[in-house]
Amino acid sequence: MKLDLIDTYQIYVEPFHVDFTGRIFMGLLGNHLLNAAGNHSQKRGWGIGALNETRHTWVLSRLSIEMTSMPKQYQHCQVKTWVESVMKLFTNRNFAVLDEDGNPMGYARSVWAMIDMQTRKPCDLLSLYDGDICNYVVPEEQNVCPIAGHGRFRFKDAQLARTIGTYYSDVDINGHINSIKYIEHILDLFPRERFEQGIRRLEIAYKTESYMGDSLSFYLQPVQSGEESCEPKEIDVEVRKNVSEESAGEVVCQAKIIFN
Amino acid sequence: MKLDLIDTYQIYVEPFHVDFTGRIFMGLLGNHLLNAAGNHSQKRGWGIGALNETRHTWVLSRLSIEMTSMPKQYQHCQVKTWVESVMKLFTNRNFAVLDEDGNPMGYARSVWAMIDMQTRKPCDLLSLYDGDICNYVVPEEQNVCPIAGHGRFRFKDAQLARTIGTYYSDVDINGHINSIKYIEHILDLFPRERFEQGIRRLEIAYKTESYMGDSLSFYLQPVQSGEESCEPKEIDVEVRKNVSEESAGEVVCQAKIIFN
Repeated sequence: MKLDLIDTYQIYVEPFHVDFTGRIFMGLLGNHLLNAAGNHSQKRGWGIGALNETRHTWVLSRLSIEMTSMPKQYQHCQVKTWVESVMKLFTNRNFAVLDEDGNPMGYARSVWAMIDMQTRKPCDLLSLYDGDICNYVVPEEQNVCPIAGHGRFRFKDAQLARTIGTYYSDVDINGHINSIKYIEHILDLFPRERFEQGIRRLEIAYKTESYMGDSLSFYLQPVQSGEESCEPKEIDVEVRKNVSEESAGEVVCQAKIIFN
Repeated sequence: MKLDLIDTYQIYVEPFHVDFTGRIFMGLLGNHLLNAAGNHSQKRGWGIGALNETRHTWVLSRLSIEMTSMPKQYQHCQVKTWVESVMKLFTNRNFAVLDEDGNPMGYARSVWAMIDMQTRKPCDLLSLYDGDICNYVVPEEQNVCPIAGHGRFRFKDAQLARTIGTYYSDVDINGHINSIKYIEHILDLFPRERFEQGIRRLEIAYKTESYMGDSLSFYLQPVQSGEESCEPKEIDVEVRKNVSEESAGEVVCQAKIIFN
């Protein structure tokens, strides 16, 4: 049976998955997107399980989510996901989040690399398994993802907001700090009031892994808006590990938050 | 249609829900149990939605989980849940966690009170809705939950292990620190090695609510075992909010962890 190029993944918003406004936490929405991606890959022979046999694995490089409305407690939604394009070292995967009636609530874009688990070096996606992945790229007219692409970050006067330790609950099965946990820790930098209207867009670029026991330092850089009197609605965040008096540490990830 | 007294709730262990050993995080297992409980109540007219109409809500008072084996990544399991007994101010709800073949992996016990949302005072469960809840108590022979009941805590020389702030991701739709987040923060007190063999039993007693912005201080008290040379496998934890030089703060919850 030939599978559709676009997969549908059902999500249900559990009571413990919503914030104080009753909307799903952005990190948990990201988690659902990654599950939808994993599911789509796995059904097409490109899941982690199959890849592990040849010592390959997927690494998430970028994730940008932009929502016009956030799923609410007890809501049933669906995530559509598909492969937009494949290059030598990266593949672009897009997502649409739809409500019960199929109306779009938002979209997301992601970039993935494939690495060799032993060397940790990227692989050539176009030659792996004879380029089979190219069979899953959707025709252009089906690639409906009307949100901006991933932006570039330029940090020049970011201010240290918080340094935290990393613990047992932060770590995934690979021993790395879980990519979703970074999103949680980043959002935890902001006061309650900032979430009353919700988040419109989150972008995150993963640069290097961190591990249980690493310290993470979070630097904030407001992106200037015209209205200087208002709290800026757009903020860039750089996360560095193991910053000390002697060392500027190493960039782990960079993110942009745009509040409504 | 008359519903069975015992409900079955399916769980699937997602990749992001497992720790570095590949077993589900205890907090997330707790989350599944609470969802199973919510689902069971809701189908019988005792869910949060129905209760909110009369300004009542459930409050979790105790939760004890004891596992002989923990669900693993990609595993499909089921949670059975039922009402063991109802008293004036509390009801006991039990759980069994079964693997794909119906073999028990562990059990859990919980205690719930019903409160009036305006006065925050407990209600008489036996008179609410004419004692309808008593219709859902299982006959004794169906109440199979072969784990110890909730114990008592006695703190006398607990040592401060960590004080943390509470942030956006800690807070649920009621504005309280989410009951599952306490479990995460408690387990985060322990080093990685403690989790290699997994956790056999977790008990938690919720005493009072805390809110975003409260500080939480965690005090550890090892429970002495015969072998003084070994790390104790059983540790009690007391969580106090807003401890300061002037104040011992207020007890938020107390927990016991027994590692394998």
